Parts: sequence; structure tokens; C-alpha cells
Amino acid sequence: MATTSAQQNVEFVQTGYGKNLVKVLCIRRHGIHHYIIEVKANVELSLKSRKDYLTGDNSDIIPTDTIKNTVHALAKLKGVKTIEQFSLDICHHFLTSFNHVLRARVSMEEAPWKRIEKNGEEHVHAFIYSPEAFRFCDVEQNLNGVPVVHSGLKDMKVLKTTQSGFEGFFKDRFTTLQETKDRCFCTSVYARWRYNRVQDIDFDAAWESVKGALVERFCGPCDRGEYSPSVQKTLYDSQLLILERLPEVEEIEIVMPNQHYFNIDMTKMGLQNSNEVLLPLDNPSGNIAGTVRRKPLARL
Amino acid sequence: MATTSAQQNVEFVQTGYGKNLVKVLCIRRHGIHHYIIEVKANVELSLKSRKDYLTGDNSDIIPTDTIKNTVHALAKLKGVKTIEQFSLDICHHFLTSFNHVLRARVSMEEAPWKRIEKNGEEHVHAFIYSPEAFRFCDVEQNLNGVPVVHSGLKDMKVLKTTQSGFEGFFKDRFTTLQETKDRCFCTSVYARWRYNRVQDIDFDAAWESVKGALVERFCGPCDRGEYSPSVQKTLYDSQLLILERLPEVEEIEIVMPNQHYFNIDMTKMGLQNSNEVLLPLDNPSGNIAGTVRRKPLARL
Amino acid sequence: MATTSAQQNVEFVQTGYGKNLVKVLCIRRHGIHHYIIEVKANVELSLKSRKDYLTGDNSDIIPTDTIKNTVHALAKLKGVKTIEQFSLDICHHFLTSFNHVLRARVSMEEAPWKRIEKNGEEHVHAFIYSPEAFRFCDVEQNLNGVPVVHSGLKDMKVLKTTQSGFEGFFKDRFTTLQETKDRCFCTSVYARWRYNRVQDIDFDAAWESVKGALVERFCGPCDRGEYSPSVQKTLYDSQLLILERLPEVEEIEIVMPNQHYFNIDMTKMGLQNSNEVLLPLDNPSGNIAGTVRRKPLARL
Amino acid sequence: MATTSAQQNVEFVQTGYGKNLVKVLCIRRHGIHHYIIEVKANVELSLKSRKDYLTGDNSDIIPTDTIKNTVHALAKLKGVKTIEQFSLDICHHFLTSFNHVLRARVSMEEAPWKRIEKNGEEHVHAFIYSPEAFRFCDVEQNLNGVPVVHSGLKDMKVLKTTQSGFEGFFKDRFTTLQETKDRCFCTSVYARWRYNRVQDIDFDAAWESVKGALVERFCGPCDRGEYSPSVQKTLYDSQLLILERLPEVEEIEIVMPNQHYFNIDMTKMGLQNSNEVLLPLDNPSGNIAGTVRRKPLARL
Repeated sequence: MATTSAQQNVEFVQTGYGKNLVKVLCIRRHGIHHYIIEVKANVELSLKSRKDYLTGDNSDIIPTDTIKNTVHALAKLKGVKTIEQFSLDICHHFLTSFNHVLRARVSMEEAPWKRIEKNGEEHVHAFIYSPEAFRFCDVEQNLNGVPVVHSGLKDMKVLKTTQSGFEGFFKDRFTTLQETKDRCFCTSVYARWRYNRVQDIDFDAAWESVKGALVERFCGPCDRGEYSPSVQKTLYDSQLLILERLPEVEEIEIVMPNQHYFNIDMTKMGLQNSNEVLLPLDNPSGNIAGTVRRKPLARL
Repeated sequence: MATTSAQQNVEFVQTGYGKNLVKVLCIRRHGIHHYIIEVKANVELSLKSRKDYLTGDNSDIIPTDTIKNTVHALAKLKGVKTIEQFSLDICHHFLTSFNHVLRARVSMEEAPWKRIEKNGEEHVHAFIYSPEAFRFCDVEQNLNGVPVVHSGLKDMKVLKTTQSGFEGFFKDRFTTLQETKDRCFCTSVYARWRYNRVQDIDFDAAWESVKGALVERFCGPCDRGEYSPSVQKTLYDSQLLILERLPEVEEIEIVMPNQHYFNIDMTKMGLQNSNEVLLPLDNPSGNIAGTVRRKPLARL
Repeated sequence: MATTSAQQNVEFVQTGYGKNLVKVLCIRRHGIHHYIIEVKANVELSLKSRKDYLTGDNSDIIPTDTIKNTVHALAKLKGVKTIEQFSLDICHHFLTSFNHVLRARVSMEEAPWKRIEKNGEEHVHAFIYSPEAFRFCDVEQNLNGVPVVHSGLKDMKVLKTTQSGFEGFFKDRFTTLQETKDRCFCTSVYARWRYNRVQDIDFDAAWESVKGALVERFCGPCDRGEYSPSVQKTLYDSQLLILERLPEVEEIEIVMPNQHYFNIDMTKMGLQNSNEVLLPLDNPSGNIAGTVRRKPLARL
Repeated sequence: MATTSAQQNVEFVQTGYGKNLVKVLCIRRHGIHHYIIEVKANVELSLKSRKDYLTGDNSDIIPTDTIKNTVHALAKLKGVKTIEQFSLDICHHFLTSFNHVLRARVSMEEAPWKRIEKNGEEHVHAFIYSPEAFRFCDVEQNLNGVPVVHSGLKDMKVLKTTQSGFEGFFKDRFTTLQETKDRCFCTSVYARWRYNRVQDIDFDAAWESVKGALVERFCGPCDRGEYSPSVQKTLYDSQLLILERLPEVEEIEIVMPNQHYFNIDMTKMGLQNSNEVLLPLDNPSGNIAGTVRRKPLARL
């Protein structure tokens, strides 16, 4: 349909295709002890030629249906230990099984299944869905390149009723916000970090360690908490703690929305409400983001 | 606008109005120890007259904005110990503060905040959103009547990798399902029960007890599980256990969808997959429901 | 697992099971002209015996997988003209093909596909998803009974910028709402009606007629609108209009949430905002409901 | 909290903060004729200094609450003609009102309100929510830089029952897909394009023109359609057509998921189903993406 002249004036910036939301549950059985991991994956390939786009020649296309089958088959052949390792396996497969795949990208998310316990005893084959936080990863590899692995944590919602304030900010004619030394602070943490190597990383331990550091920096010591002068400061302090604790992490992005809870003014109803009854606001929300990395020197 | 003749041929079956999704977070402070409960409520009133519908005469309408304010004010004045007690307080308010409210209904859901712990120590003011299951209630009261309290649990997703089967079912020309002695079984439990009284009930303990019974019946003993011959049987056994353990529960409805995980057939790919890699199916899902109650004699 | 004594004290209130979210797209081809209807159905059966719940005897269970297959097969064998007719066909099948099915219930929703047009010309085989409103139905039939058909419309969101007010309402100590003769009014209409017969109804025409009446009553004449003194009055007037126009409708429920848009107070910023810039509020929302039916005499 | 040594080893990659989901409905009144536009905006600022992150010094922070107020105030002061123009106004405000804002980014989405019509007559003040497609934009501007404007269309779901095939693709041991000359094809189009200038663009006309081209390329002529040999080819042809028709567009990304509808195999039920009854699959879905731009020479 496209005229030749139209094609002559146009160039590709990028192309890619694949299968989204490929789901599998993998069960490993050690006798009566069963282990599970459930994932959903998006897989994207970029090919050497664009003749499929240009002329409708499909001869280079590995169908998205085959991509789905491949994820299933690799789950069977390789097993799924972690989402990171499985994503690496998928990238490796596509870059080594074909010589016309230029790049493979896999985004994967793990379903937050938790083994059921009773009085400290673990169940051998039963699990409960426990979405305190979601774990995901993004793995990307170019032909003849080393894979780049990002891991992430998202949708971890935490709230503290005190030890948060916001003072001394810039004011202009549109500023109506009051300064406060004491407010309720709620956020839904998103963090995504890049590893400085691929081999010999305990991805499970690293994820748990990041989660622990985020919670620890957010809430402070159990008996008194820790004052946060702004979301920005708490976000950055979390990043410092993570980079201190995890030498395998090179760079980390954190996003902390400020999900507002406002004191409800009851004076018109003749009542005095001192942050006892608050209004949870779905929107708008503040949004604070920052990415930091190790300095080049610090890497030596 | 409506013609008189049109009105003459029509009668009301029912009417009601109110405010939906009224949200509050309540903080109780005992020194440095803070306690929270966050709820969202739907409140519905039915009035003696329908002149608002019939003629646009609003003089009996307690505005939905006032209903929202009232929820806020009662949270401040009465406090919120449990969603059930707070719903009872709201019904009581509307039926006793006005003499033209015939019925009040409150549906309330609690946000699943959990106190943050570290090494067994509880944090004094920090919480994490932990939606393993949602707690809700429905309270309804008529003028001069006793309130009826239902409590509920929903969206508790559990999975077991074995000890579930489905055999001996009815077959017709459209049946293609194979019988099985061993399958993966996943469900998202919904339960809603009615109390046989309103006073002197520990709603928190009752909810936890129902949750515990549901998990226990689903997964069986930790070291070996318990065979389920059908969702129907497991559902009914859960109901029996709950009615045995909780004398204050009169009637209980349970819905257990069967969220399918199917073995992926890999024979066309030359692979043998024996329930190691399964496909999670979003839809369709089976849906099994049942409501039971104590027999009249059993109540004596 | 259940003890005999526990069973002796308990009786069933109701049971039912089936398949939810069974989806099909049906294509009818008249030469190059293609017609489509896409539906998702929930099907529930109630059986004569409860031995599946009581003892794990599955011999009466028509598997939910068979129920899904049956929906597929009936779509092929009977075709799908309307969701109402297809739901009737499904109920009829289960009540006549088995003698142990006591009741069949089908809830069905149609995907809002609309034929693509260009300059008034209709495309022969291309469609666009156009969800201005969703159409659904609920059909229920008991063994040896006549089917009861409800049709419905939901999620039709409409907004008018004037010709809406709310005055003269009841006030108490918690009332802070101001009276107004002119406000923005937005609602998401839900309507569900029962037919007084099953044969010889043009379900497509009826649904369009109800939709038209709802829009007409909401917005009034194009050149000036029509004043609404309350949601209650507009809701009831819509019901009257529908019962006048559709003799086949016996009863109709309408729910009209009041999705608030509030004037933003800009006085602190030195600006005067007269309902030019409004804040859309996700929650809370008002909720107004009412069900009316023809009077018995009016049916003669 | 952060140790000085930890800070010394770390550098910022980027920072930004703002307010998400700021909503407004704007009403313009020309006598009895009312015009509306409802938007939700995410606004992000990057500041010259990071002392807020580093030391908790908030003195440079324009609070996110002020950002929200500013959106409200600018809607009042400037009006909202298009989301693109309003986003430009917001960026301009923050870069010119402060001298410590390095970059402003605004993402905005418009609610798909459509004026209600009856028999070809337009209503003066009533609207219906008609989400056939969503319109959005992303505007970014650096201090002393020219703004970059992207517009976009998303969630436009279209389906054709024929004139789509997929043949001649690459096959390996994991390929089980059959070749086909005739399949049902459904996609939910996402398109996002960059303008090569900011002044004198009719953003409304451009968006409608892109939408029209996407629909036209997808479905072909009304009386016979147009064969698509792959999603890739149809996607690229759409891009060519858009770049031909809209000289103001410099670059365009399109994503077309392949939302599968599979023929249901009924042979086990003794039925022959030839693409009459299809199964809509929620997941997985194919995902085809591509970005093209004008060649440098073509810009001369």
C-alpha cells in the first residue's frame, strides 16, 4: 500500500516485537515438599532486517506464538529459580539459537505467593497470595553483548502516623500549604536497580535486602521511628543505605509518591479534630523520584 | 415532567440513597504507641416519604454530603474500634437522630494495614499494607428493629499443588474434561456470615477465627495436606468447621471460584511435561457457592 | 472430614455452581458482509441433590468445564442473535437435557463493538470498540417454570454543565452543603428492567429505547435542557418515561450515582472562579437508587 | 542519617518531583452554549540544586501542593483550549516564574467527553463519555530550551473478521502455529508522535487526522477491506500514511498488540466450527512496535 516515495523519506528509529503476559506456574517437587514460582513475562526481540515492516516478507519473523512456546519450554528444560535467572536464560536462548536476533529484552514479574505456616511450621504444598510488594526484573541483551540486569520492587505501601514533616519550602502567590512538623506520611514505594555483574549474584537475597533497607529507612527504629524532613531526603537516604549494603548494585532509581492523608476540618460541625480522623486522598498525589549511582572512582 | 397519568400506573418497589466510598483513617494515640484503622463506607438511607422522587420536594432529604460529614463526625465522636461497631454506630445515629429514616444500611471495608515488625519487635507508629485478605461488613437496621450484622472476608487467594482431585462426575456429549486424582487447586475465597446477636461479640477474634478455619480446611495439616474430592466438599467442610467453632455465627455463605492452572501440553515440542509447568488461566473460572445455617433445633 | 454431628445441626440455604467469564465471539457471514457479537457469560446451575457438598459424591456434577463447552457448542448450534435469546437458549438446554438441574441462571454482557463507518458508509467487516454504555442481561429459569428475563444498561456516563440544582433539603448540625440552583451534574447510569413476557420481544430495540429515554430525560431538549431539582426526581422521571414507552417492561431499577464536580475555591490565590474550573472527585460519590413497577391494575 | 562517606561515593543520575493526577474540568460558556474539556495532568519539575535530597534543606522546593494549585490557577487564567497548549502553558509558567527550575515536564490526558446529539442537533450543555480512543500528550521543556511536544492516542480497540493473514514465517522446534491466509485480527492501537514545531499547529485537527489514518489503514475500503500480511506491515503502512498527511509530524511510534481470537476446536464434541465461534484471549497477546521518523534529507 505504501508508495515507494513515502518509504524513501522515512527511516526506522527502532522496531521490536514479542509476546506480552506469558504466564507460567512452575512446581518443583522434592518428595512431598513442593516449591512454586509463578511468573508473567513480556519478551521482545529486535531483528536484523525490517523486511517484515517494509514489504510484508515474514520469513525472518519468529512468531510471537513461538516466543510463548519457548518460554514454556525453557521453564521445563531449565527450570525457574529466580525471575532474573529465567530472564537471562530466555535472552540467551534467542541470541544463540538464531543469528538474526539483534536484541532480546525480557520483563518479568513474580506472583507474591508465600508458603502457608501454622504455629511456625511450614506447609509442604500450600501457599497464600501475599502482595505486600511485587518483585520484577528487566533483562536486556544485545547480540555479542553482556546482559544488563535490573531488578525491582513495586507497590509496597507503607504508612507512618508521625515523625514526618515538611517545612521551610519555597512560597509564591499560589502557595496555600501550611508548614508542618508532624504529619501522617504514606507512600507506595517503587525501586529499580542495576547490578554491576551477572554471575554469582544471589538475586533472592539481594531483593530481600533492598526491601528491608527501604522499610528500615522509612520507619526508623521500632521504639521511636526517625524524623523525615521531606520525601526527597528519605528517598535519598534509602538509596545510600542500599548502595552501602549491596556492593553488587551499581545504580538505583526510587520513586516515592506522597499519598496524602489530610486532617478533616470539623470546625463547621463544632468539633475539634487534631489529626485523629484523616481523609485518604486517591488523587492527586505528590511524586518524588531520584536515581543515583556509584561514582566511577568509587567503583575501583 | 412526568404526566399524572403515568404516575398513577406506577408504584415503588424500593428506594434508597446515600454516599458511597466515604473514606477515613482514624489514629488513636496512647503516648508514643499509635493505632490505626482505615475504612471506606457506603451508607444508604430509606426515607418514609418519596416526595423527592415524586415531586422534587427535597425537604426530607438528608443530603449525601451530610451523610459523609456524619461518618467523619462519628469517627471523631465515637472512635472506630471495628468496622462492625462503627457501622452499628452509624445506623443507630441515623435511626435515632431523625424520625423519618425507615432504614439504614452500611457496608464497610477495612484497609489491610499491618503493624511493621522487626525481629519480633513491633513498631510504635509504622504500618505496611498487607492484603492477604480483605475484611468487610454489612449492617442493616430498620426503624424500631434490631440491627443485622454480616461480616465478611474476600480476595484471599490460596493455592495447593496437590491433594486435590475431581473424579466420577456426570458426562454428556459436551464433556471433554479428564478425571484426575491429582491437580493443582487455586481459589480466591469469599465468605460472608451473619451473627445471631449484636452485643458482646469480639468481631476481631471472630474474623481471625473464620480466616484460620478457611485456611486450615483448604490446606490440611502442614506435613501432608488433606485430599479434596471437589471444591463443593471443601467449601461445605469449611462451613461446618466455622459453625462448630463460632457459636455466634448463625449462617454462612462461601464462594470458592476454581481458578484453573492447566498442565501445558508440550508433546508437539517433543517434551514431556508432568504438571511441572502450568498455565494460569485468568478466565473462565469455575464458581462454587453455598450457604448453610444452623437448624432451628440446633439453636436451642 | 466433617463430623456427622456437625452435619446434623446444619441445613442448606442455597447452593449453586457454574462457570464464570465464558467468552465467545460469534461471526455471521452473509457473503462479504460480516456481523459479530462478543459476549461473556456467567452460568450457574442448582442441582436436586447436595451429595457433592455432603459426601464428595460427584456423580451429579455437570463439570464447569462441560458448562463452558456447552456455551461454545450452543453458540455454534443456535447462533447468538441477542444476549437475551442466547441466555434463554442456555437455560433451556440445561433444564431439558438433564432431569436433575433445578435451576439455571445466566448473566451475560455484550462487548460494545460498533461497525466502522466512513462518510456514512458502513464497513463490511471492521469494527471499533465503543463503550458509551454496556448492555447486559440476567436470565433465570426453574425446572418447569417460565424464564425471567432482566435486561440492563450500565456505565453510561453523562454530564451536564447546568440545569441542575439542589435546594430546600433537610439540615442538621452536620450539614455544611450550600443550596444551589445551578450546578454541574455528572452520573454513570445503571438501569435494569424486567420484561413481562419472553416471546416476541425485540430485545435490541427495547435496549436502544431505554438508552434513548435515559439520555433524553437526563439532558432535556437540545436547545435549552431541562431543570433537575434532584437526582431522585430525574431518576423517577426516567422510569416513568421508560414504562410509558415500553409496554413490555414490567419493573425497572435505576441507580444514578452523583459523581461530584466541585467549584475550586481560588480566593486564597487572589482569583475569582465561578464554576469555570471544577474539581472532578473520584470519591466519595452520592448514590441514588429506586425501583418502580406497574401497578397490578395497570397491568390489566 | 546518611554517613558523609556514603554520600561521597554516590552521584545523582537524575531527580524530579511533582504532582500526579491533577484533575480539572473547564467549562467555557458562550451564552447558553457550553464547551467543556476535562483533563488529568502529571507535572514534574527538576531543580538546580539537590540540597533537599542531600541535607533535607527544603528552601528550593516548590511544594507539590503549589504545583497542583498552579495547574488550577492557570486553567482559570489561561483557559484550556487543548491539552497540548495547556501543557505548554504550564511548562512556560514554571520555567519563567522561577529561576531555579531546570526542566518542566507535563503529561496530560483528556477525558473523552462527546457532545450529546439528537437527530443531528447538538445539545447546548450535555455530554456523554465516549472512550473510543484516549488522547494524551507529553510536553517537556528545559530552561532556555524550546519545548518538545508529543501527542498520543491510546486504547483504540479495533477488530476485523477477515483480510488478515500470517504466512511464511520462520519455524523452529518450538513452532506450533499454523500458517493462515484468513484470520480475525484485533488490536488496541497506541500511537505517539512528535511535532517538528510548536507554533501554529492545530492540535485538534492533527489528532483527528492521525486517528482517521490509523482506522483507514487498519480496515481498508468499506466495501472490501484490505489484506494485512502481518501486524508489522500494517503498522508501518499506518506510519507512512500519517507522515504523508501530516507535515508537522516528525516522528511516530506505534504499538499494536495482537489480541488473539482463536477458532474453538469442537471436533471432540462432534461439531465443525469454521471460525464462526471464536475464543477471545485476554493473555498472552502479541506485541508489535515500531518508531519511524523523517529522514534528515526529507526535512529540507
